[in-house]
Amino acid sequence: MSSKPASKVVPPLKDELDIVIPTIRNLDFLEMWKPFFEQYHLIIVQDGDPSKKIHVPEGFDYELYNRNDINRILGPKASCISFKDSACRCFGFLVSKKKYIFTIDDDCFVAKDPSGEQINALAQHIHNLLTPATPFFFNTLYDPYREGADFVRGYPFSMREGAPTAVSHGLWLNIPDYDAPTQLVKPRERNTRYVDAVLTIPKGTLFPMCGMNLAFDRELIGAAMYFGLMGDGQPIGRYDDMWAGWCTKVITDHLGLGVKTGIPYIWHSKASNPFVNLKKEYKGIYWQEDIIPFFQSVVLSKESKTVQQCYVELSKLVREKLGPIDPYFLKLADAMVTWIEAWDELNSAAAAAPAAAADAAKKDASSSTKKK
Amino acid sequence: MSSKPASKVVPPLKDELDIVIPTIRNLDFLEMWKPFFEQYHLIIVQDGDPSKKIHVPEGFDYELYNRNDINRILGPKASCISFKDSACRCFGFLVSKKKYIFTIDDDCFVAKDPSGEQINALAQHIHNLLTPATPFFFNTLYDPYREGADFVRGYPFSMREGAPTAVSHGLWLNIPDYDAPTQLVKPRERNTRYVDAVLTIPKGTLFPMCGMNLAFDRELIGAAMYFGLMGDGQPIGRYDDMWAGWCTKVITDHLGLGVKTGIPYIWHSKASNPFVNLKKEYKGIYWQEDIIPFFQSVVLSKESKTVQQCYVELSKLVREKLGPIDPYFLKLADAMVTWIEAWDELNSAAAAAPAAAADAAKKDASSSTKKK
Repeated sequence: MSSKPASKVVPPLKDELDIVIPTIRNLDFLEMWKPFFEQYHLIIVQDGDPSKKIHVPEGFDYELYNRNDINRILGPKASCISFKDSACRCFGFLVSKKKYIFTIDDDCFVAKDPSGEQINALAQHIHNLLTPATPFFFNTLYDPYREGADFVRGYPFSMREGAPTAVSHGLWLNIPDYDAPTQLVKPRERNTRYVDAVLTIPKGTLFPMCGMNLAFDRELIGAAMYFGLMGDGQPIGRYDDMWAGWCTKVITDHLGLGVKTGIPYIWHSKASNPFVNLKKEYKGIYWQEDIIPFFQSVVLSKESKTVQQCYVELSKLVREKLGPIDPYFLKLADAMVTWIEAWDELNSAAAAAPAAAADAAKKDASSSTKKK
Repeated sequence: MSSKPASKVVPPLKDELDIVIPTIRNLDFLEMWKPFFEQYHLIIVQDGDPSKKIHVPEGFDYELYNRNDINRILGPKASCISFKDSACRCFGFLVSKKKYIFTIDDDCFVAKDPSGEQINALAQHIHNLLTPATPFFFNTLYDPYREGADFVRGYPFSMREGAPTAVSHGLWLNIPDYDAPTQLVKPRERNTRYVDAVLTIPKGTLFPMCGMNLAFDRELIGAAMYFGLMGDGQPIGRYDDMWAGWCTKVITDHLGLGVKTGIPYIWHSKASNPFVNLKKEYKGIYWQEDIIPFFQSVVLSKESKTVQQCYVELSKLVREKLGPIDPYFLKLADAMVTWIEAWDELNSAAAAAPAAAADAAKKDASSSTKKK
């Protein structure tokens, strides 16, 4: 697939994909992405002080929500959206009306492939999402749907249709996504290895999902892309995307959907402060020793057939199995339910109708901030 | 790790690794491997007509076994070793006394990495085997033990010790390892994508193991590296390595061991005849639709603590669950038991003592063919 800028032609999924960006600063990083993003719609979720003015470079079609907007649109349900943490990005997933989401951090720039060509990360994510995944059997030549590749000898033919791809997890050159202890131990490590592969994470296997460079099919899995309670007033941070990843993987496995990881790469420009990170992470670091076995053993019931049903069932299991670890998980289980209520309110068939309160609220919000 | 020829220094595991090569022709391909193999010991398993003289290039330390040797050493148990099929290679695994095995096909040459440097496939396999695997959780930056990589944020710390690596499965540039139908459909497809990664195949996930470029820890998993009944007098071929891969993966999963796939690449020079392959494969192609679900559902008992115990238990399950498909699987189940009997005979503590019959037999065999 070509990674050339598609500025003169209509890019794929132009009207079916929103780009969600959480930020507390000016979005100058978008300048570099202009050739790839300018024909898409952006949803910017402003974190922190709502009175601060976020500068968005000229030429982008966007809507911007700050905390006041979130509170107005969700009312009491706004409690499920984190504050002062990039977990707030999931608000953008909630208010989007598109089938696909690409979310990217504002310290991520366009990377180059080994031939020196700029990587159109969005185009590769779209390719990943629009081709099937192979969660039921491992293909040793990686994604069999890529140009020049296929299923290898011994791959069962009945499994070659694959499964719909729900998630495309991209990677990072330069600053790798390390936890605070690893950052402290390896302050100078940079990721310079360009691995030219995308592969499906097999069914039954968990992975650490990073929200920095991530795309997904909102119709297939959006309701599970909740980034939890992090940041202001919460005992942990930097586990927002991990939480979403664990929940998402368990649910995609249950529903027969696929999750891919690998290309595209973005250029991650700077490491966050490891001392600050350690403070945010330390509870997560030991809690996850119980959380991972929990998610590895989760079995959802056959009655849970939709993502929402799966997610509500999962919230009950979180309450029951993780609640004893810390009261935080009881709060989180409640927030999971609130999230689904908010999701259904804004994304039901009724919400799509003109009279729907949620839709009206969204229009109110975006009317004040939407730019073209 | 350096991929330079190590001809002047003692290469890693020089006295702890055998290179096993099945062949029916002259081994001129070894010339190209000389810088990498010349300090290692080779075990050559000659397939087909035993009266044919196999030419081995000068400068290699090897022992060579033909069918007459196999029959003499194993007696009636020789029935478990395939004839006129590369499955015969597992005889080399049986008679080796080393801890590690590297096996390679005689149409595989030294590949080059993207920088143009010759790839020391053996050195990379050794690196793969001597560093842990990570079967319990997926690491998105692939092998965390490689230079410049590590575990990413969210990888549970208690799992970072990993598991002992039992198998290192290497890949192929040029001619990909396709089945006959894919060969027929894509006669001109060549693998030109060098994916600079090695990763662990997660626990619970099966994969199509190719025997062309494969290394393993014989002490950890050797007894499961049986390549089945193929070729002469059997209804299928080209499923020898697949069979070994399915059995091996189920047993490594049960025993808490790891299987890696990815680099190193070799250069696979020529495609085998797809029409001949189709004839060999066609039963396997439909049988595997039952075989794969069988292996995916196999649960070995806690009582099976050694590879041999696991393998014998697996043979019983094969008889019970696959026997109804075709009488071939009853024969195969018997051969699996015979293989373990042969393994124990040649590899028990007693066999290591000078008086052991099997060892003596091996000496007889190799005395006539061993060269230095």
